[in-house]
Amino acid sequence: MRRHEDWMRLAYELAKAAEGQTAPNPMVGAVAVKEGRLIGSGSHLKAGTPHAEVHALNMAGTEARGCTLYVTLEPCNHYGRTPPCTEKIIECGVKTVVVGSIDPDSKVSGKGIARLREAGIEVIQGVLEPECLKLNEAYFHHRQTGKPFVTLKTAMTLDGKIATESGDSRWITGEESRRYVHVLRHRHDAILAGIGTVLADNPRLTTRLETGGSHPLRVIVDSRLRIPLDAAVLDTSEAPTWVFTTDQQDPTKEKQLREKGVEVISTGPGPRVDWETVLRRLGEKGVLSLLVEGGGEVNASLLAEKRVQKVIAFIAPKLIGGRNSPTPVEGKSPQKMEDAFTLREISMERYGDDFCITGYLT
Amino acid sequence: MRRHEDWMRLAYELAKAAEGQTAPNPMVGAVAVKEGRLIGSGSHLKAGTPHAEVHALNMAGTEARGCTLYVTLEPCNHYGRTPPCTEKIIECGVKTVVVGSIDPDSKVSGKGIARLREAGIEVIQGVLEPECLKLNEAYFHHRQTGKPFVTLKTAMTLDGKIATESGDSRWITGEESRRYVHVLRHRHDAILAGIGTVLADNPRLTTRLETGGSHPLRVIVDSRLRIPLDAAVLDTSEAPTWVFTTDQQDPTKEKQLREKGVEVISTGPGPRVDWETVLRRLGEKGVLSLLVEGGGEVNASLLAEKRVQKVIAFIAPKLIGGRNSPTPVEGKSPQKMEDAFTLREISMERYGDDFCITGYLT
Repeated sequence: MRRHEDWMRLAYELAKAAEGQTAPNPMVGAVAVKEGRLIGSGSHLKAGTPHAEVHALNMAGTEARGCTLYVTLEPCNHYGRTPPCTEKIIECGVKTVVVGSIDPDSKVSGKGIARLREAGIEVIQGVLEPECLKLNEAYFHHRQTGKPFVTLKTAMTLDGKIATESGDSRWITGEESRRYVHVLRHRHDAILAGIGTVLADNPRLTTRLETGGSHPLRVIVDSRLRIPLDAAVLDTSEAPTWVFTTDQQDPTKEKQLREKGVEVISTGPGPRVDWETVLRRLGEKGVLSLLVEGGGEVNASLLAEKRVQKVIAFIAPKLIGGRNSPTPVEGKSPQKMEDAFTLREISMERYGDDFCITGYLT
Repeated sequence: MRRHEDWMRLAYELAKAAEGQTAPNPMVGAVAVKEGRLIGSGSHLKAGTPHAEVHALNMAGTEARGCTLYVTLEPCNHYGRTPPCTEKIIECGVKTVVVGSIDPDSKVSGKGIARLREAGIEVIQGVLEPECLKLNEAYFHHRQTGKPFVTLKTAMTLDGKIATESGDSRWITGEESRRYVHVLRHRHDAILAGIGTVLADNPRLTTRLETGGSHPLRVIVDSRLRIPLDAAVLDTSEAPTWVFTTDQQDPTKEKQLREKGVEVISTGPGPRVDWETVLRRLGEKGVLSLLVEGGGEVNASLLAEKRVQKVIAFIAPKLIGGRNSPTPVEGKSPQKMEDAFTLREISMERYGDDFCITGYLT
């Protein structure tokens, strides 16, 4: 006999399988069960299309009456682009709803559950809650702050270098790590790099996986529009590109960029691009998750302003040395080690010979 | 019924338990078994005292006749400070000898096994061989090269820094990692630091474990004898200290150091200390294993000359930043990433929140 946790885990896997395709909506999975038998399942696939609960109940059909519905996120109780899920659940005669996590969105939070209970449906809360919360960490952060959840991705050698003294960084990490970076790009709504990275490496910043994958919105931070017109990232036939700049930009260059289909946004007088404006504008556009593949100065600046939520650091078992080789975070350090940023909820994965350490900033 | 591997593993554990106390001899463990019953066991404890086989056979007493003897390293067949183990094994009437690894020392290699077979004893080789070889990696390296096996130990943040810009390094790693460093010191015959580290941190470089432990020989590399006479590492009442310097030293300082009981050795004209001389002199003194806790320049210089066999890198999940914060390996980097040193046989352990990555240089 499967327990609540087992069915919720299936719903969780269904939700997670749609990672990278649901923004600005959250990932949600649902499973309908009757007398120990699976009778329906579904995932929310894309904003504007039916919610996970609706797919699962449609699949169950008339069997839905009296069933238990497992859903990773509290069902919605409001009219958005689709009708409220609570009404569908009530109409179908569901007996029990098991909820993984509560939606912090004030339009929903707790109201979906209250509506179900009003209608006489038993509601069980908090099953597999930590996993269900983590799954939508970006969505929840966005709902609470209006800004994207920022993940800083770095890749360095075992002696802390991101390139040789002359700037060669191909390749720090092995093939499996590099492939996983494309999975990360697929999972994020936007990707950000500084003009330094564009000038040094001319990256495309697209998702290139053998099985496809979706491209993130490409975001370049370039205070004086130094970006060359033939930069790979400006090819908007592949994916959209936004360039954030300042009023110190060159207006001719701005016009040329717009002609290439690039969105150019000034964040104010400068001299540096204003992060608050960048993140707020991305949040308004429905970007829930932002992957930063910046150089050491972009990383230092975001960290100093406490704008980073998560760090994913790849470490390759190589030594390159070099007093002047670049490192993942530059800028200025505090005087005392006790003022370092300490990550929490640390985890580690291996990709080939490389290590990938993930942690959160408090 | 225990298999050969199981008994050999016990012998291996007995050998390993004496880590840090056997130099210049190898670690060896032995187990005597008769009709599936343990009848004797022993470890080599200290140079000049009985070998593991002798302890195990003494414990077995008259029971030894007809037994199987498991020994992690081929028994010796020569007179050193103790009589040859082969003769003891033959006298005791051992029926079978199971050997973990062959001694690469030309005085022994294969000769012990040949002598046993001559005497009609069955010899089984290569049981748990990889573990038994790794256990004595330092001993084997020393026998083959006359120089100590060099392990470079580093500790950095997740952004590759070993201190803040102002030099504060207390603490990069957590308590559990720092405790393990003292275990490493106990396990090594000598520990090396550059004058830069002495001037910056004034370390004692002793083994400080709640349960005791042995102090390594402390080795300081100081080309012009800049070391202050009140440096903690010069207190030879705690542990012996050697300072390697060059002919560019100050003779008055040399005399003062000698008066404090410090050995001062010039490695030639300079301007830098000659690593070949340092390692050869340590090897002659019976130092099998050298732990390098140097700064970035010492590490870079040893790596560039390919004098490092193993790297133990602690990584703390912290970010400190700083364009000018010191990193684990400085010096000059090659131009191309493909010329980086790549570690092999990578392994990872956790100490609290820290990661400890170990690998070998080819």
